[in-house]
Amino acid sequence: MARRSTYRLPKIPEMTIRRLSVYTRCLLQLEEDGVKTVSSQELAERFNLNSAQVRKDLAYFGEFGVRGIGYYVAGLKAELQRILGLDHEWPVALVGFGNLGSALFHYKGFTRQGFRIAAVFDDDPAKVNREVAGVPVFDMRDLGREVKARNIQIAILAVPAEAAQAAADQLVAAGIKAVLNFAPARLKLARDVRLKDVDLSIELETLSFYLAKNVR
Amino acid sequence: MARRSTYRLPKIPEMTIRRLSVYTRCLLQLEEDGVKTVSSQELAERFNLNSAQVRKDLAYFGEFGVRGIGYYVAGLKAELQRILGLDHEWPVALVGFGNLGSALFHYKGFTRQGFRIAAVFDDDPAKVNREVAGVPVFDMRDLGREVKARNIQIAILAVPAEAAQAAADQLVAAGIKAVLNFAPARLKLARDVRLKDVDLSIELETLSFYLAKNVR
Repeated sequence: MARRSTYRLPKIPEMTIRRLSVYTRCLLQLEEDGVKTVSSQELAERFNLNSAQVRKDLAYFGEFGVRGIGYYVAGLKAELQRILGLDHEWPVALVGFGNLGSALFHYKGFTRQGFRIAAVFDDDPAKVNREVAGVPVFDMRDLGREVKARNIQIAILAVPAEAAQAAADQLVAAGIKAVLNFAPARLKLARDVRLKDVDLSIELETLSFYLAKNVR
Repeated sequence: MARRSTYRLPKIPEMTIRRLSVYTRCLLQLEEDGVKTVSSQELAERFNLNSAQVRKDLAYFGEFGVRGIGYYVAGLKAELQRILGLDHEWPVALVGFGNLGSALFHYKGFTRQGFRIAAVFDDDPAKVNREVAGVPVFDMRDLGREVKARNIQIAILAVPAEAAQAAADQLVAAGIKAVLNFAPARLKLARDVRLKDVDLSIELETLSFYLAKNVR
Protein backbone atom coordinates (compact mmCIF):
# COMPACT_ATOMS: atom_id res chain seq x y z
CA MET A 1 0.00 0.00 0.00
CA ALA A 2 2.43 2.68 -1.16
CA ARG A 3 -0.50 4.90 -1.96
CA ARG A 4 1.17 8.01 -0.61
CA SER A 5 4.66 7.33 -1.85
CA THR A 6 4.93 10.48 -3.97
CA TYR A 7 3.58 12.58 -1.12
CA ARG A 8 6.32 14.73 0.35
CA LEU A 9 4.21 17.46 2.00
CA PRO A 10 2.90 17.29 5.57
CA LYS A 11 -0.67 15.98 5.78
CA ILE A 12 -2.87 18.78 4.50
CA PRO A 13 -6.33 19.10 6.09
CA GLU A 14 -9.09 18.70 3.53
CA MET A 15 -10.62 21.97 4.71
CA THR A 16 -7.36 23.68 3.70
CA ILE A 17 -7.67 22.25 0.19
CA ARG A 18 -11.25 23.48 0.02
CA ARG A 19 -10.19 26.93 1.14
CA LEU A 20 -7.43 27.03 -1.50
CA SER A 21 -10.25 26.65 -4.03
CA VAL A 22 -12.04 29.59 -2.44
CA TYR A 23 -8.88 31.72 -2.44
CA THR A 24 -8.32 30.92 -6.11
CA ARG A 25 -11.81 32.25 -6.88
CA CYS A 26 -11.13 35.41 -4.88
CA LEU A 27 -7.83 36.00 -6.69
CA LEU A 28 -9.52 35.50 -10.08
CA GLN A 29 -12.04 38.16 -9.07
CA LEU A 30 -9.27 40.56 -7.97
CA GLU A 31 -7.42 39.96 -11.23
CA GLU A 32 -10.56 40.77 -13.21
CA ASP A 33 -10.84 43.99 -11.20
CA GLY A 34 -7.26 44.95 -12.11
CA VAL A 35 -5.85 44.54 -8.59
CA LYS A 36 -2.12 43.66 -8.73
CA THR A 37 -1.21 43.00 -5.08
CA VAL A 38 -3.24 42.22 -1.97
CA SER A 39 -2.44 41.67 1.70
CA SER A 40 -3.98 38.80 3.63
CA GLN A 41 -5.96 41.42 5.60
CA GLU A 42 -7.37 43.02 2.45
CA LEU A 43 -8.17 39.61 1.00
CA ALA A 44 -9.93 38.61 4.24
CA GLU A 45 -11.91 41.84 4.47
CA ARG A 46 -13.07 41.91 0.89
CA PHE A 47 -14.11 38.27 0.72
CA ASN A 48 -15.21 37.72 4.28
CA LEU A 49 -12.35 35.33 5.13
CA ASN A 50 -10.10 34.93 8.19
CA SER A 51 -6.66 36.46 7.51
CA ALA A 52 -4.79 34.25 10.03
CA GLN A 53 -6.41 31.22 8.41
CA VAL A 54 -5.35 32.41 4.95
CA ARG A 55 -1.73 32.71 6.07
CA LYS A 56 -1.81 29.34 7.83
CA ASP A 57 -3.36 27.57 4.83
CA LEU A 58 -0.81 29.04 2.40
CA ALA A 59 2.08 28.22 4.73
CA TYR A 60 1.55 24.52 4.02
CA PHE A 61 2.78 25.11 0.49
CA GLY A 62 5.47 27.74 0.81
CA GLU A 63 6.17 31.42 1.43
CA PHE A 64 4.05 33.41 -0.98
CA GLY A 65 3.84 36.84 0.66
CA VAL A 66 6.34 39.66 0.19
CA ARG A 67 6.91 41.88 3.22
CA GLY A 68 5.36 45.33 2.76
CA ILE A 69 3.61 44.28 -0.44
CA GLY A 70 1.50 41.25 0.35
CA TYR A 71 0.72 38.75 -2.37
CA TYR A 72 1.10 39.24 -6.11
CA VAL A 73 -2.42 38.42 -7.28
CA ALA A 74 -1.53 36.80 -10.63
CA GLY A 75 1.42 34.87 -9.21
CA LEU A 76 -0.43 33.51 -6.20
CA LYS A 77 -3.44 32.57 -8.33
CA ALA A 78 -1.21 30.64 -10.77
CA GLU A 79 0.57 28.92 -7.89
CA LEU A 80 -2.69 27.85 -6.22
CA GLN A 81 -4.07 26.62 -9.53
CA ARG A 82 -0.95 24.53 -10.01
CA ILE A 83 -1.25 23.10 -6.47
CA LEU A 84 -4.91 22.26 -7.06
CA GLY A 85 -4.12 20.61 -10.39
CA LEU A 86 -6.07 23.31 -12.22
CA ASP A 87 -3.22 24.33 -14.50
CA HIS A 88 -4.47 21.91 -17.12
CA GLU A 89 -7.82 20.58 -18.25
CA TRP A 90 -9.33 17.42 -16.72
CA PRO A 91 -11.66 15.38 -18.89
CA VAL A 92 -14.51 14.10 -16.72
CA ALA A 93 -17.02 11.27 -17.19
CA LEU A 94 -20.57 12.00 -16.09
CA VAL A 95 -22.43 8.83 -15.17
CA GLY A 96 -26.21 9.18 -14.93
CA PHE A 97 -28.14 11.61 -17.08
CA GLY A 98 -31.36 12.06 -15.12
CA ASN A 99 -32.43 15.27 -13.41
CA LEU A 100 -29.31 15.67 -11.33
CA GLY A 101 -26.96 14.52 -14.09
CA SER A 102 -28.50 17.06 -16.47
CA ALA A 103 -28.13 19.84 -13.93
CA LEU A 104 -24.49 18.90 -13.35
CA PHE A 105 -23.92 18.73 -17.12
CA HIS A 106 -25.04 22.35 -17.43
CA TYR A 107 -23.31 23.52 -14.24
CA LYS A 108 -20.99 26.28 -15.42
CA GLY A 109 -18.67 26.14 -12.44
CA PHE A 110 -16.98 22.93 -13.61
CA THR A 111 -15.81 24.27 -16.97
CA ARG A 112 -14.59 27.49 -15.42
CA GLN A 113 -12.19 25.51 -13.21
CA GLY A 114 -10.87 23.30 -16.00
CA PHE A 115 -13.18 20.31 -15.65
CA ARG A 116 -14.62 19.35 -19.03
CA ILE A 117 -17.33 16.72 -19.25
CA ALA A 118 -15.90 14.59 -22.05
CA ALA A 119 -18.46 11.79 -22.07
CA VAL A 120 -21.86 11.05 -20.50
CA PHE A 121 -23.10 7.56 -19.66
CA ASP A 122 -26.60 6.28 -18.93
CA ASP A 123 -28.39 2.94 -19.10
CA ASP A 124 -31.57 4.34 -20.62
CA PRO A 125 -31.58 3.41 -24.34
CA ALA A 126 -33.65 6.53 -25.08
CA LYS A 127 -30.86 8.78 -23.85
CA VAL A 128 -27.78 7.24 -25.42
CA ASN A 129 -26.00 7.17 -28.78
CA ARG A 130 -26.42 10.87 -29.39
CA GLU A 131 -24.65 14.12 -28.59
CA VAL A 132 -25.73 16.85 -26.20
CA ALA A 133 -24.02 20.22 -26.69
CA GLY A 134 -21.23 18.45 -28.53
CA VAL A 135 -20.69 15.82 -25.82
CA PRO A 136 -21.34 12.15 -26.67
CA VAL A 137 -23.82 10.18 -24.53
CA PHE A 138 -22.97 6.47 -24.35
CA ASP A 139 -24.59 3.35 -23.02
CA MET A 140 -23.14 2.17 -19.71
CA ARG A 141 -21.83 -0.95 -21.43
CA ASP A 142 -19.43 1.26 -23.43
CA LEU A 143 -18.02 2.87 -20.30
CA GLY A 144 -14.78 0.89 -20.08
CA ARG A 145 -13.91 1.45 -23.72
CA GLU A 146 -14.70 5.17 -23.79
CA VAL A 147 -13.09 6.06 -20.46
CA LYS A 148 -9.85 4.42 -21.57
CA ALA A 149 -9.97 5.91 -25.07
CA ARG A 150 -10.40 9.40 -23.62
CA ASN A 151 -7.89 8.91 -20.80
CA ILE A 152 -10.48 10.01 -18.24
CA GLN A 153 -9.42 9.82 -14.57
CA ILE A 154 -12.30 11.64 -12.85
CA ALA A 155 -15.96 10.62 -12.82
CA ILE A 156 -19.09 12.27 -11.48
CA LEU A 157 -21.61 9.69 -10.32
CA ALA A 158 -25.23 10.85 -10.47
CA VAL A 159 -27.18 7.60 -10.62
CA PRO A 160 -29.87 6.32 -8.19
CA ALA A 161 -28.56 4.85 -4.92
CA GLU A 162 -29.37 1.28 -5.91
CA ALA A 163 -27.30 1.55 -9.11
CA ALA A 164 -24.35 3.34 -7.54
CA GLN A 165 -22.09 0.50 -6.40
CA ALA A 166 -22.33 -1.36 -9.73
CA ALA A 167 -21.59 1.83 -11.65
CA ALA A 168 -18.67 2.63 -9.33
CA ASP A 169 -17.25 -0.86 -9.87
CA GLN A 170 -17.41 -0.30 -13.63
CA LEU A 171 -15.64 3.04 -13.22
CA VAL A 172 -12.84 1.52 -11.17
CA ALA A 173 -12.43 -1.35 -13.66
CA ALA A 174 -12.14 1.27 -16.41
CA GLY A 175 -9.23 2.92 -14.59
CA ILE A 176 -10.98 5.91 -13.01
CA LYS A 177 -8.89 7.35 -10.15
CA ALA A 178 -11.35 9.75 -8.49
CA VAL A 179 -15.13 9.64 -8.06
CA LEU A 180 -17.38 12.51 -7.07
CA ASN A 181 -20.45 10.65 -5.82
CA PHE A 182 -23.88 12.29 -5.65
CA ALA A 183 -25.77 9.03 -5.09
CA PRO A 184 -27.01 8.61 -1.51
CA ALA A 185 -25.06 5.36 -1.06
CA ARG A 186 -21.88 4.48 0.83
CA LEU A 187 -19.58 3.05 -1.82
CA LYS A 188 -16.73 0.63 -1.34
CA LEU A 189 -13.91 1.33 -3.79
CA ALA A 190 -10.36 0.14 -4.27
CA ARG A 191 -8.04 1.97 -1.87
CA ASP A 192 -6.14 3.81 -4.59
CA VAL A 193 -9.35 5.40 -5.88
CA ARG A 194 -10.23 8.71 -4.27
CA LEU A 195 -13.90 9.01 -3.32
CA LYS A 196 -15.73 12.21 -2.45
CA ASP A 197 -19.36 11.88 -1.38
CA VAL A 198 -21.66 14.83 -1.91
CA ASP A 199 -24.82 14.33 0.09
CA LEU A 200 -26.96 17.37 -0.47
CA SER A 201 -29.24 16.64 2.48
CA ILE A 202 -26.27 16.62 4.87
CA GLU A 203 -25.74 20.25 3.99
CA LEU A 204 -29.34 20.97 4.96
CA GLU A 205 -28.93 19.01 8.18
CA THR A 206 -26.03 21.15 9.38
CA LEU A 207 -28.41 24.09 8.94
CA SER A 208 -31.30 22.44 10.78
CA PHE A 209 -28.89 21.53 13.60
CA TYR A 210 -28.16 25.21 14.21
CA LEU A 211 -31.81 26.25 13.82
CA ALA A 212 -32.98 23.50 16.17
CA LYS A 213 -30.37 24.54 18.72
CA ASN A 214 -31.66 28.09 18.76
CA VAL A 215 -35.28 27.19 19.34
CA ARG A 216 -34.61 24.90 22.28
CA MET B 1 -25.31 40.02 19.23
CA ALA B 2 -26.72 37.42 21.58
CA ARG B 3 -26.76 34.98 18.70
CA ARG B 4 -25.45 32.08 20.77
CA SER B 5 -27.31 32.81 23.98
CA THR B 6 -29.22 29.51 24.00
CA TYR B 7 -26.06 27.59 23.20
CA ARG B 8 -24.92 25.58 26.23
CA LEU B 9 -22.81 22.94 24.52
CA PRO B 10 -19.08 23.28 23.82
CA LYS B 11 -18.33 24.44 20.28
CA ILE B 12 -19.08 21.49 18.02
CA PRO B 13 -16.90 21.10 14.90
CA GLU B 14 -18.98 21.29 11.73
CA MET B 15 -17.42 18.01 10.59
CA THR B 16 -18.90 16.38 13.71
CA ILE B 17 -22.36 17.64 12.74
CA ARG B 18 -21.87 16.27 9.23
CA ARG B 19 -20.82 12.91 10.64
CA LEU B 20 -23.89 12.79 12.91
CA SER B 21 -25.91 12.96 9.68
CA VAL B 22 -23.92 10.03 8.33
CA TYR B 23 -24.38 8.02 11.55
CA THR B 24 -28.12 8.67 11.42
CA ARG B 25 -28.23 7.18 7.91
CA CYS B 26 -26.26 4.12 9.08
CA LEU B 27 -28.60 3.59 12.03
CA LEU B 28 -31.64 3.88 9.77
CA GLN B 29 -30.11 1.17 7.60
CA LEU B 30 -29.44 -1.07 10.62
CA GLU B 31 -32.99 -0.53 11.85
CA GLU B 32 -34.35 -1.58 8.45
CA ASP B 33 -32.19 -4.69 8.68
CA GLY B 34 -33.68 -5.55 12.08
CA VAL B 35 -30.49 -4.91 14.06
CA LYS B 36 -31.30 -3.88 17.66
CA THR B 37 -27.90 -3.05 19.16
CA VAL B 38 -24.52 -2.21 17.67
CA SER B 39 -21.05 -1.47 19.05
CA SER B 40 -18.99 1.42 17.74
CA GLN B 41 -16.62 -1.18 16.25
CA GLU B 42 -19.42 -2.97 14.39
CA LEU B 43 -20.83 0.34 13.19
CA ALA B 44 -17.38 1.39 11.98
CA GLU B 45 -16.69 -1.89 10.22
CA ARG B 46 -20.01 -2.18 8.49
CA PHE B 47 -20.10 1.41 7.23
CA ASN B 48 -16.44 2.07 6.74
CA LEU B 49 -16.19 4.60 9.59
CA ASN B 50 -13.60 5.25 12.31
CA SER B 51 -14.79 3.82 15.65
CA ALA B 52 -12.73 6.21 17.81
CA GLN B 53 -14.15 9.10 15.80
CA VAL B 54 -17.69 7.79 16.31
CA ARG B 55 -17.20 7.69 20.09
CA LYS B 56 -15.60 11.15 20.16
CA ASP B 57 -18.34 12.69 18.03
CA LEU B 58 -21.10 11.23 20.17
CA ALA B 59 -19.35 12.26 23.40
CA TYR B 60 -20.09 15.91 22.59
CA PHE B 61 -23.75 15.20 23.20
CA GLY B 62 -23.80 12.69 26.04
CA GLU B 63 -23.19 9.08 27.03
CA PHE B 64 -25.11 6.90 24.59
CA GLY B 65 -23.34 3.56 24.84
CA VAL B 66 -24.15 0.80 27.33
CA ARG B 67 -21.19 -1.25 28.54
CA GLY B 68 -21.23 -4.77 27.11
CA ILE B 69 -24.12 -3.95 24.76
CA GLY B 70 -23.07 -0.96 22.66
CA TYR B 71 -25.71 1.38 21.33
CA TYR B 72 -29.43 0.73 21.10
CA VAL B 73 -30.01 1.37 17.38
CA ALA B 74 -33.51 2.85 17.61
CA GLY B 75 -32.69 4.95 20.66
CA LEU B 76 -29.46 6.40 19.28
CA LYS B 77 -31.09 7.11 15.93
CA ALA B 78 -33.94 9.01 17.61
CA GLU B 79 -31.47 10.92 19.78
CA LEU B 80 -29.31 11.95 16.81
CA GLN B 81 -32.38 12.98 14.83
CA ARG B 82 -33.46 15.17 17.74
CA ILE B 83 -29.98 16.74 17.97
CA LEU B 84 -29.98 17.41 14.22
CA GLY B 85 -33.43 18.93 14.33
CA LEU B 86 -34.81 16.08 12.24
CA ASP B 87 -37.50 15.07 14.71
CA HIS B 88 -39.97 17.30 12.92
CA GLU B 89 -40.55 18.45 9.35
CA TRP B 90 -38.91 21.60 8.00
CA PRO B 91 -40.74 23.43 5.23
CA VAL B 92 -38.17 24.72 2.74
CA ALA B 93 -38.32 27.42 0.06
CA LEU B 94 -36.59 26.61 -3.23
CA VAL B 95 -35.49 29.75 -5.07
CA GLY B 96 -34.59 29.27 -8.73
CA PHE B 97 -36.26 26.65 -10.89
CA GLY B 98 -33.76 26.16 -13.70
CA ASN B 99 -31.75 22.99 -14.30
CA LEU B 100 -30.24 22.82 -10.85
CA GLY B 101 -33.42 23.95 -9.07
CA SER B 102 -35.40 21.22 -10.86
CA ALA B 103 -32.83 18.58 -9.93
CA LEU B 104 -32.93 19.69 -6.29
CA PHE B 105 -36.74 19.71 -6.39
CA HIS B 106 -36.71 16.05 -7.37
CA TYR B 107 -33.81 15.08 -5.08
CA LYS B 108 -35.26 12.37 -2.86
CA GLY B 109 -32.73 12.76 -0.07
CA PHE B 110 -34.32 15.96 1.24
CA THR B 111 -37.77 14.52 1.88
CA ARG B 112 -36.32 11.42 3.51
CA GLN B 113 -34.65 13.59 6.15
CA GLY B 114 -37.72 15.71 6.89
CA PHE B 115 -37.09 18.62 4.54
CA ARG B 116 -40.21 19.38 2.49
CA ILE B 117 -40.05 21.88 -0.36
CA ALA B 118 -43.14 23.90 0.48
CA ALA B 119 -42.84 26.61 -2.19
CA VAL B 120 -40.75 27.29 -5.29
CA PHE B 121 -39.85 30.77 -6.54
CA ASP B 122 -38.59 31.95 -9.93
CA ASP B 123 -38.58 35.20 -11.86
CA ASP B 124 -39.48 33.60 -15.20
CA PRO B 125 -43.18 34.34 -15.87
CA ALA B 126 -43.42 31.10 -17.89
CA LYS B 127 -42.60 29.02 -14.83
CA VAL B 128 -44.73 30.62 -12.14
CA ASN B 129 -48.34 30.59 -10.96
CA ARG B 130 -48.72 26.86 -11.30
CA GLU B 131 -48.11 23.72 -9.28
CA VAL B 132 -45.45 21.07 -9.80
CA ALA B 133 -46.09 17.75 -8.04
CA GLY B 134 -48.44 19.56 -5.69
CA VAL B 135 -45.99 22.33 -4.80
CA PRO B 136 -46.85 25.91 -5.78
CA VAL B 137 -44.41 27.88 -7.95
CA PHE B 138 -44.53 31.63 -7.26
CA ASP B 139 -43.09 34.74 -8.79
CA MET B 140 -40.11 36.14 -6.85
CA ARG B 141 -42.17 39.20 -5.99
CA ASP B 142 -44.46 37.01 -3.86
CA LEU B 143 -41.54 35.60 -1.86
CA GLY B 144 -41.98 37.74 1.26
CA ARG B 145 -45.66 37.00 1.53
CA GLU B 146 -45.44 33.26 0.91
CA VAL B 147 -42.41 32.60 3.11
CA LYS B 148 -44.14 34.32 6.02
CA ALA B 149 -47.50 32.66 5.38
CA ARG B 150 -45.85 29.22 5.38
CA ASN B 151 -43.55 29.96 8.30
CA ILE B 152 -40.51 28.88 6.24
CA GLN B 153 -37.11 29.31 7.90
CA ILE B 154 -34.83 27.45 5.45
CA ALA B 155 -34.22 28.33 1.80
CA ILE B 156 -32.29 26.63 -0.98
CA LEU B 157 -30.83 29.17 -3.39
CA ALA B 158 -30.30 27.84 -6.92
CA VAL B 159 -30.25 31.01 -9.03
CA PRO B 160 -27.44 32.29 -11.31
CA ALA B 161 -24.51 33.97 -9.55
CA GLU B 162 -25.49 37.46 -10.67
CA ALA B 163 -28.99 37.12 -9.17
CA ALA B 164 -27.89 35.51 -5.91
CA GLN B 165 -27.27 38.49 -3.62
CA ALA B 166 -30.57 40.18 -4.51
CA ALA B 167 -32.47 36.92 -3.97
CA ALA B 168 -30.65 36.35 -0.66
CA ASP B 169 -31.56 39.87 0.48
CA GLN B 170 -35.22 39.12 -0.29
CA LEU B 171 -34.98 35.88 1.68
CA VAL B 172 -33.49 37.60 4.71
CA ALA B 173 -36.13 40.35 4.55
CA ALA B 174 -38.79 37.62 4.49
CA GLY B 175 -37.44 36.18 7.76
CA ILE B 176 -35.46 33.21 6.44
CA LYS B 177 -32.94 32.00 9.05
CA ALA B 178 -30.78 29.59 7.03
CA VAL B 179 -29.72 29.56 3.38
CA LEU B 180 -28.24 26.66 1.47
CA ASN B 181 -26.56 28.47 -1.43
CA PHE B 182 -25.73 26.70 -4.70
CA ALA B 183 -24.99 29.90 -6.62
CA PRO B 184 -21.27 30.44 -7.25
CA ALA B 185 -21.30 33.77 -5.41
CA ARG B 186 -20.01 34.87 -2.00
CA LEU B 187 -23.09 36.26 -0.26
CA LYS B 188 -23.19 38.80 2.52
CA LEU B 189 -26.05 38.11 4.90
CA ALA B 190 -27.18 39.41 8.28
CA ARG B 191 -25.15 37.81 11.05
CA ASP B 192 -28.07 35.92 12.53
CA VAL B 193 -28.74 34.13 9.23
CA ARG B 194 -26.87 30.88 8.80
CA LEU B 195 -25.29 30.48 5.36
CA LYS B 196 -23.99 27.27 3.85
CA ASP B 197 -22.32 27.49 0.45
CA VAL B 198 -22.32 24.43 -1.77
CA ASP B 199 -19.81 24.89 -4.55
CA LEU B 200 -19.87 21.75 -6.61
CA SER B 201 -16.61 22.51 -8.38
CA ILE B 202 -14.77 22.79 -5.04
CA GLU B 203 -15.59 19.13 -4.51
CA LEU B 204 -14.00 18.31 -7.84
CA GLU B 205 -10.96 20.43 -6.99
CA THR B 206 -10.20 18.47 -3.84
CA LEU B 207 -10.11 15.42 -6.10
CA SER B 208 -7.87 17.02 -8.72
CA PHE B 209 -5.54 18.16 -5.91
CA TYR B 210 -4.95 14.56 -4.92
CA LEU B 211 -4.63 13.36 -8.51
CA ALA B 212 -2.23 16.16 -9.40
CA LYS B 213 -0.14 15.35 -6.34
CA ASN B 214 0.23 11.74 -7.39
CA VAL B 215 1.44 12.49 -10.89
CA ARG B 216 4.11 14.95 -9.81
